[in-house]
Amino acid sequence: MSGQLSRDGIDDVYGGSLALLTDLYQLSMACGYWKAGTSEREAAFHLTFRRPPFDGGYAIAAGIAPALAFLRRLRFTADDVGFLATIPDASGSPLFPPAFLDYLGDLRFTCTVDAIPEGSVVFAHEPIIRVIGPILQAQIVETALLTLVNFQTLIATKASRVVASARGAAVVEFGLRRAQGIDGGLSASRAAYLGGTAGTSSVLAGKLFGIPVKGTHAHSWVMAHGDELAAFRAYADALPGNTTFLVDTYDTLQGVRNAITVGHELRARGHQLAGIRLDSGDLAHLSIEARRMLDADGFGDAKITASNDLDEHLINSLHDQGARIDVWGIGTKLVTAFDQPALGGVYKLGATRQDGTWRAVLKLSEQPIKISNPGILQVKRLRLGGALVGDILYDREAGFSGPTLHDIEDPLRAPVSPTFDSAEDLLVTYLERGEPVRDLDSLEVCRARAASDLAALSPRTRRFANPQPHPVGLDRHVHTQKLRLIAAARGLSHA
Amino acid sequence: MSGQLSRDGIDDVYGGSLALLTDLYQLSMACGYWKAGTSEREAAFHLTFRRPPFDGGYAIAAGIAPALAFLRRLRFTADDVGFLATIPDASGSPLFPPAFLDYLGDLRFTCTVDAIPEGSVVFAHEPIIRVIGPILQAQIVETALLTLVNFQTLIATKASRVVASARGAAVVEFGLRRAQGIDGGLSASRAAYLGGTAGTSSVLAGKLFGIPVKGTHAHSWVMAHGDELAAFRAYADALPGNTTFLVDTYDTLQGVRNAITVGHELRARGHQLAGIRLDSGDLAHLSIEARRMLDADGFGDAKITASNDLDEHLINSLHDQGARIDVWGIGTKLVTAFDQPALGGVYKLGATRQDGTWRAVLKLSEQPIKISNPGILQVKRLRLGGALVGDILYDREAGFSGPTLHDIEDPLRAPVSPTFDSAEDLLVTYLERGEPVRDLDSLEVCRARAASDLAALSPRTRRFANPQPHPVGLDRHVHTQKLRLIAAARGLSHA
Repeated sequence: MSGQLSRDGIDDVYGGSLALLTDLYQLSMACGYWKAGTSEREAAFHLTFRRPPFDGGYAIAAGIAPALAFLRRLRFTADDVGFLATIPDASGSPLFPPAFLDYLGDLRFTCTVDAIPEGSVVFAHEPIIRVIGPILQAQIVETALLTLVNFQTLIATKASRVVASARGAAVVEFGLRRAQGIDGGLSASRAAYLGGTAGTSSVLAGKLFGIPVKGTHAHSWVMAHGDELAAFRAYADALPGNTTFLVDTYDTLQGVRNAITVGHELRARGHQLAGIRLDSGDLAHLSIEARRMLDADGFGDAKITASNDLDEHLINSLHDQGARIDVWGIGTKLVTAFDQPALGGVYKLGATRQDGTWRAVLKLSEQPIKISNPGILQVKRLRLGGALVGDILYDREAGFSGPTLHDIEDPLRAPVSPTFDSAEDLLVTYLERGEPVRDLDSLEVCRARAASDLAALSPRTRRFANPQPHPVGLDRHVHTQKLRLIAAARGLSHA
Repeated sequence: MSGQLSRDGIDDVYGGSLALLTDLYQLSMACGYWKAGTSEREAAFHLTFRRPPFDGGYAIAAGIAPALAFLRRLRFTADDVGFLATIPDASGSPLFPPAFLDYLGDLRFTCTVDAIPEGSVVFAHEPIIRVIGPILQAQIVETALLTLVNFQTLIATKASRVVASARGAAVVEFGLRRAQGIDGGLSASRAAYLGGTAGTSSVLAGKLFGIPVKGTHAHSWVMAHGDELAAFRAYADALPGNTTFLVDTYDTLQGVRNAITVGHELRARGHQLAGIRLDSGDLAHLSIEARRMLDADGFGDAKITASNDLDEHLINSLHDQGARIDVWGIGTKLVTAFDQPALGGVYKLGATRQDGTWRAVLKLSEQPIKISNPGILQVKRLRLGGALVGDILYDREAGFSGPTLHDIEDPLRAPVSPTFDSAEDLLVTYLERGEPVRDLDSLEVCRARAASDLAALSPRTRRFANPQPHPVGLDRHVHTQKLRLIAAARGLSHA
């Protein structure tokens, strides 16, 4: 199991604990619980999002493995505690009492953590991760869990959209140079592969995560030689088994002719021209012309790769224009999720335990979508012939009250009861009181799960334009509980 | 010096070399140079961007320190080389010859690296980093340099805009939970501070970079207590010197009344109410009301913090509405640069040396803005009474041909000669044949440089709407050289 947990991108790249990867207010609240003597009071938190990204209908859960690795290694080192002792309060005195810092230094993570397996299709309001345990511990991990899950879920979802638009052609992620920092790049490569890309240009991501590594050459290779034909020949001489020539440094169609010339030379030496890459200009026109030229010279197997600030919408448009592209190289727009670079995931308290009894709690808001769902939540996923037909949030303590969905954002809407032939709980336990109780799936297994869940999702929900929301609701118990708590809180707020 | 270089966010967080933090094609081209026996041929590369981000008129150079640290520690470990040996080519054979991998294993970085000091205001087409040395080495560092400089420059620039919109009020960066991965967060905190923010919520960024760490508490603190007044009292009991209460969990103005109640109790104990935080609703109306209530009860010193998906445009709008906000907490929109989450920085070959003579090279494009500038470039910055009045790119080999600017994108435009009273070279040498020859400035010094450069920049260029471009051009020699090379390349391309 430790072998699995080591392939998460934290163990290998960062060493040791990342306990300080948190907002200061988490530690301030921890100090508050410690001071009040309530740090061991049990609480349940849920990590959810409120809207699928990109105006879409779904997301792909990702970032679970690094999140679990972070939790397992959570520990405040002497160095961490020493730094915390230097933080001043508003008056310049030390913010934290020394006895509290001693407490942090001794702290070990003992919460029970459930999560939806990585690669699963998930929807708004579903708990992707659930943390149950001493409130101090469950609180201080909020920031890091959000950082890790928000971003990878965002990118896995974006990748699934780009891959869908490619209609079976390979998508290779090329984004490292435009990524948001080092592991903005590394974790984007991981999440993109999980979401369906075929490979990455990032060598380190290949090493850390076992993702196939792909690449061609740059304009600078041609510029350094001055003469394009000489540049292609030199490249073919060094790497005869990997000859995808970038043809647009000077004149694209002349570049294609040069690639064909070297393709004939390669063939004479017993090698194959792998293909060409287009990185500028009218990709529809140029790919059609290049395909015609390659085919006419007997290079029907040579692949045409296209790149240049592409995303799922441009790929769809190029398909509509009859572009002949075999491999899509996608960088900036994928690894930064350019059109929506953050998923607004949140981590909300669902219940606290006092005198042995769990009490559901709720965060009010004037916007119904922002009112939290109370309880210790589990998700029942209903399927019919394998297809996803509805998800129901229910309270683990109360049990599942039946396959009827009450709308989350509009409580006056009539409940619906989907026809189904199988039902499964989505959240599974990974850590039991801090100790691992389940092996993590390999990245390949998570990637296959994403593909299979996407295939089981209605095309109406998968489509880009105005997707039909997947039926996700509350069971009768949570619905009733929520209405009761809203009424109580609104009464309280006017007291 | 090594002490300075260790405070860059790579040494401390990542251990060891990041040689594989690159695109595969860099190593493929390296193999090509090695095979052709031209790996030691000298080349000069420039890292530039083509358009300032956010439709603005400038950028703040950032990410230089981590980029230099990356270069200094560049080394292919036995583990790295072992991984490279496993990468297959298109036919399934090993992509790289073993003798090339041996070469990589022995490689040491010996290039000379100049950069514009971190925190400087920079403009499109200016080389932020210049790498001169053996072409193989100068090529393989492209991806990592772009990753590090693109993102931090983007965020430092965004931060400077948000800080400008705050009109003297403090801006605290709160973005870790929505950041793009772990050091998407850490390096955003660093760059944002460099760009002018007053602090961060991220404890680890505080520890690594010496940034002041700030924070309040979350809604969950109030929810866990059920009763808001009890929650504020418990917080004040634990941290009486850091009492900024989040007042919008249930009803915002009732929350302000509760904060005032606890403020009186704090005062009786010899402490001060630090302030309140608003995180939802009509921030203009609520801040005006809260200010009135606080002042009426004698809490004129209590500060009002506002947060909730804010950016420079919303801050400006809230100012226009008379909002009374003392501290702005800015998260998602700042750390992801939400409206433009990538800077399109590029790294282009400017010259190669053959038989002892430098030869300027050029990358053509149908778009004038994408045609590279040839030579080994330096930037002459002209000032008048301290104010920035013009920047001129010139060729180090040819020398500076005088203070006349030729337009970069429109060569037919008449040259201009700004009035100036001082001129300085912007690029300074940090690494001489791989060895450090200059201390890096501290983050505080870089932050002060950004503030001072911004103050020296024309308000017409600083403004958000349709900024006037700063005068940046080529000197006569580079201009003439570029026209000659364009003509030659266009001739070549039709040959």
